[in-house]
Amino acid sequence: MDAPPTHDPIAELITNYNELNSSFIEELHEEPSALEFMRFVARNTPFVVRGGAANWQATREWSVDYLRNFLGDQPVNVAVTPAGNADAPTLYNPPSQPPTLVLAKPHEHPLPFTALLTHLTSPNPSNSEVHYAQTQNDNLRHEYAPLFTHHSHNLPTSIPWARLALARDPDAINLWIGNSRSTTALHKDGYENVYVQVAGRKHFILLPPVCHACVNERMLPGARYVRRKRGGDGTAEGEEGGLELVLDGEGGGDGEGGAVPFPIWDPDKPEENATEYSALARPMRVTLEPGDMLYLPCLWYHKVSQSCSPEEVCIAINYWYDMDYTGPLYPLSTFVRSVSNKNK
Amino acid sequence: MDAPPTHDPIAELITNYNELNSSFIEELHEEPSALEFMRFVARNTPFVVRGGAANWQATREWSVDYLRNFLGDQPVNVAVTPAGNADAPTLYNPPSQPPTLVLAKPHEHPLPFTALLTHLTSPNPSNSEVHYAQTQNDNLRHEYAPLFTHHSHNLPTSIPWARLALARDPDAINLWIGNSRSTTALHKDGYENVYVQVAGRKHFILLPPVCHACVNERMLPGARYVRRKRGGDGTAEGEEGGLELVLDGEGGGDGEGGAVPFPIWDPDKPEENATEYSALARPMRVTLEPGDMLYLPCLWYHKVSQSCSPEEVCIAINYWYDMDYTGPLYPLSTFVRSVSNKNK
Repeated sequence: MDAPPTHDPIAELITNYNELNSSFIEELHEEPSALEFMRFVARNTPFVVRGGAANWQATREWSVDYLRNFLGDQPVNVAVTPAGNADAPTLYNPPSQPPTLVLAKPHEHPLPFTALLTHLTSPNPSNSEVHYAQTQNDNLRHEYAPLFTHHSHNLPTSIPWARLALARDPDAINLWIGNSRSTTALHKDGYENVYVQVAGRKHFILLPPVCHACVNERMLPGARYVRRKRGGDGTAEGEEGGLELVLDGEGGGDGEGGAVPFPIWDPDKPEENATEYSALARPMRVTLEPGDMLYLPCLWYHKVSQSCSPEEVCIAINYWYDMDYTGPLYPLSTFVRSVSNKNK
Repeated sequence: MDAPPTHDPIAELITNYNELNSSFIEELHEEPSALEFMRFVARNTPFVVRGGAANWQATREWSVDYLRNFLGDQPVNVAVTPAGNADAPTLYNPPSQPPTLVLAKPHEHPLPFTALLTHLTSPNPSNSEVHYAQTQNDNLRHEYAPLFTHHSHNLPTSIPWARLALARDPDAINLWIGNSRSTTALHKDGYENVYVQVAGRKHFILLPPVCHACVNERMLPGARYVRRKRGGDGTAEGEEGGLELVLDGEGGGDGEGGAVPFPIWDPDKPEENATEYSALARPMRVTLEPGDMLYLPCLWYHKVSQSCSPEEVCIAINYWYDMDYTGPLYPLSTFVRSVSNKNK
């Protein structure tokens, strides 16, 4: 982790950006107008609306008991991981081979909704598996449609100021239900994201697209946790065993194939996996309380952790609007990445 | 002018941008709302409003006779050049020294307004000096204040949709009065620019900020045209002579000093002064007719020429709004420049 050379365009980019922009998030106390929102989109700059969704029926009434009564034993897709690391860079350590970093996808498993709630709120030992309902495939309008369509919930089909400003409907509305043990690793999305905290707290660490060279993007082979089927770990034949990481394309892997670019730097462990530029990053941190809304601009890196009391769950809903690929932001972000990678 | 290497980030940037964006300007037929305008600002993308200012008293009534009657012999500052090349890269060719490119500033000279009009509309030989009223210092609210403040003209103090969207007043409102012989060389400004054509036509050639490597920016010494005072060119002592280019800091120069970065590529002469990237540029061309409005986004390169009948003048008014230096566009544009210059 040497210091970057002087007159290094990448270091200048990050420091110029830091000088012109705050690393503290802008806080609003009422929802913006469409025009005010569009100014943030134009600046590709996040904001939080404190209490912006405080009047939503969901933030006022949803709880473990409410949801259990409402959804009952309906099956839902649950991401299961050994340590809350769904879609995270993870050390793959096969016998008699050197360990390698892979992008570990979760074991996806259908569970009755009540079983998910029971698992999330049980006093699990810290080495037990972690469950997270986090299918990011418009699940609120599909898997959880009863929550979305029931008149009593009045869940908006779009965020009005975002719909007016962006002149489009959301591409996906996602529901997230988990507990304090799940973390989403630093990554970015090609979406304008409006994030609504319903229950519990979410802790975001944000980095702008100009910080590409800080996050140490690497090509990571894909892998997925699969359930061991028989007694290799001492379980009886036929009984289910623990989770095992399997490379894509190998037996049990889902064969989606190929390595994918992914950041391996973690702003919470800034000395590990750092690049010569990581120390220049000024991560923006924001905690969402129930009823808060976050605008997370497209292409921003974000790491998300959450906390709630042991007997409750963390619930959030986010609205993804396709980003605008016209204009300079997308090609310039790609350019930053190309120049950064070329210098490696 | 070699072809750029493959996997060249700069070439990829320009071609990515070209693939995602049209090189034809978007044409509106009524003025945008503030929100619609803000979408263009967010995309850093120009548009023209055909006839957007057709109802302005200025576009309906201003003519040579009208202005002569209105302003009379009021003195105005006129930019005088040998060939219509105010603020243009120009070959400086002193005796017994190698010629060098300099940024030639015009001779600035006060003239009665009627004398300016007479010069602009006289059948001048093609080798005679060129006059242009083009002081870009908020001249409409100062030098030409009688035109701006007189109730009959109803000139807006701001463009309503720009004022609402950008939440600021214009930093400058500039009046331009010239004829077909003046050209403004390719350059860029740190302003959001709304340009209103009043009389005659303006011909714009536009390039987005990602095209920095196409325009062949060089550090040009500053120079200014000065009037020879005595008979070195055959004029009698005391009589005024022709224009002579004098380097800043030398005798007669204005001592503003230092070289400035300036593009030397001319999209109208694409083979001259080209870089290895110039051929990748897809210049956007638009002609403004009287009553048309152009949104020229900040940091876009623009070359402007004009045409009008010999007995008329070209008149335009532009509103400059300070650009927003927060967000990624400014630091990323600087980054493109740093990477491009580093590769030279």
